[in-house]
Amino acid sequence: MDAFATALFWLDYAAVAVFAATGALAAAERKHDIITFAFFAAITGVGGGTLRDLLIGAPVFWVQRPGYLIVCLVAAIIVWSLGKRGWRFRALLWLDALGLAAYAVVGTAKAMSLGVHPISSVVMGVLTTCFGGVIRDVLAGEPNMLLRREIYVTAALLGAIVFVVAEGLGLPFWPSALIGFGAAFALRAAAI
Amino acid sequence: MDAFATALFWLDYAAVAVFAATGALAAAERKHDIITFAFFAAITGVGGGTLRDLLIGAPVFWVQRPGYLIVCLVAAIIVWSLGKRGWRFRALLWLDALGLAAYAVVGTAKAMSLGVHPISSVVMGVLTTCFGGVIRDVLAGEPNMLLRREIYVTAALLGAIVFVVAEGLGLPFWPSALIGFGAAFALRAAAI
Amino acid sequence: MDAFATALFWLDYAAVAVFAATGALAAAERKHDIITFAFFAAITGVGGGTLRDLLIGAPVFWVQRPGYLIVCLVAAIIVWSLGKRGWRFRALLWLDALGLAAYAVVGTAKAMSLGVHPISSVVMGVLTTCFGGVIRDVLAGEPNMLLRREIYVTAALLGAIVFVVAEGLGLPFWPSALIGFGAAFALRAAAI
Repeated sequence: MDAFATALFWLDYAAVAVFAATGALAAAERKHDIITFAFFAAITGVGGGTLRDLLIGAPVFWVQRPGYLIVCLVAAIIVWSLGKRGWRFRALLWLDALGLAAYAVVGTAKAMSLGVHPISSVVMGVLTTCFGGVIRDVLAGEPNMLLRREIYVTAALLGAIVFVVAEGLGLPFWPSALIGFGAAFALRAAAI
Repeated sequence: MDAFATALFWLDYAAVAVFAATGALAAAERKHDIITFAFFAAITGVGGGTLRDLLIGAPVFWVQRPGYLIVCLVAAIIVWSLGKRGWRFRALLWLDALGLAAYAVVGTAKAMSLGVHPISSVVMGVLTTCFGGVIRDVLAGEPNMLLRREIYVTAALLGAIVFVVAEGLGLPFWPSALIGFGAAFALRAAAI
Repeated sequence: MDAFATALFWLDYAAVAVFAATGALAAAERKHDIITFAFFAAITGVGGGTLRDLLIGAPVFWVQRPGYLIVCLVAAIIVWSLGKRGWRFRALLWLDALGLAAYAVVGTAKAMSLGVHPISSVVMGVLTTCFGGVIRDVLAGEPNMLLRREIYVTAALLGAIVFVVAEGLGLPFWPSALIGFGAAFALRAAAI
């Protein structure tokens, strides 16, 4: 694997891990058992990318690469064993912002690379980023992020658009990805 | 494009626009920002057809034709800029009834044209019609239409069945579609 | 059809019928009309298997075999005509446990037979078993099974893992399936 693929590979796993941890935390607030922890972690970790792959007609990314599920399981176990600690939530908020920025670009890039129309690719980037959390909140019976007045969807949208526009202007992949990532992260960080 | 395809094309866009507007209205009741408006509009506008296409194994209709998303966006902006006006809800109720009748037939016809079994095609017609609204209500945290005592699913079901039976009896497409559309609209209108 | 396929065939229909009945019961508690009964029955009956088929890229099992939908409809009509009777709930609880155990194995086996990785196949078994009920609860606006402290997901997980391990150890299909079924049913029964 070349450096390019390796970097994407790790970025992808890191984003899944971060989102899985936020899913496990949602379960933690209700003192669930470890199975429910794992279930919520997996749904939140891979939910957005799963919807993206179904919509663009690609094989669902984790089905033949169960490493993703194992990452979710490990994230669930770590959150489970950490127990309730105040700093945990704050740390996750920032990790989540990194995951958001990474996924907005990765999700958009995957769709673009499969020949999906740029406008739809932006939507895929936003869905990849947000949908795992939306399912998590619906299943947890909590108001989902669409109903909260936070800048979240907007940050993902900005990152995806910046990435697509940068590539459209002729920039190579990595600068485009970095600018998109930076835009999404900066906007989300400003809102935290 | 011949007259047939042209008519279907406009019917389809019109139904998406109407459903998108009802989605934007759901967001309007909670004073959301324009991004959330657009999100709800898009989910409600294309949600039902998306599920239909996933189930019958067809490429999801809006992914390579982002005109649908743009229609949703425009519908969201119009609702957003209209602000709160009493007549708006009443007007949308009737537009929604037209959208329901159109989608019950269009959704069923698309499935039939891909060789799906007539019984399943009826289900696809009903899902196309109702599922966008169901997702909208679930995400908005409101009781969904399945729980309300309205004649809604029933009207879609009637339209889909009438269309399939009419085609089965040997009627050409347009008369069948018109009778199905009329049956669904009449039953829904009677319930408003 | 040989004995093997015949048995699987009936097992599959039986599980759909049982889950459909639990869906109809959920609708029954709110005194809905027969259409809503049927809708909930169908969603609960085929929802889990539908998600499994979408994720593994198989044609959705009921689309070209509407017998499954008819089974759901019949189950809805039976529950509807039985009315409120105390023993009904208890009987369904046990039937549901049988459905759970059957689906944990059938769902896993279908994924395995299509070459899906064993770890992902276990997840498919659990999703096939649980997801119909999760959608039912989300649409009914009730706390879903993930939030209840019942041993349900765990029983499905156990059955799926036991089946995969047994096959991995070289056992033929039927002994593996029986052991998996027994493990899931025993754990679930202990929790009722």
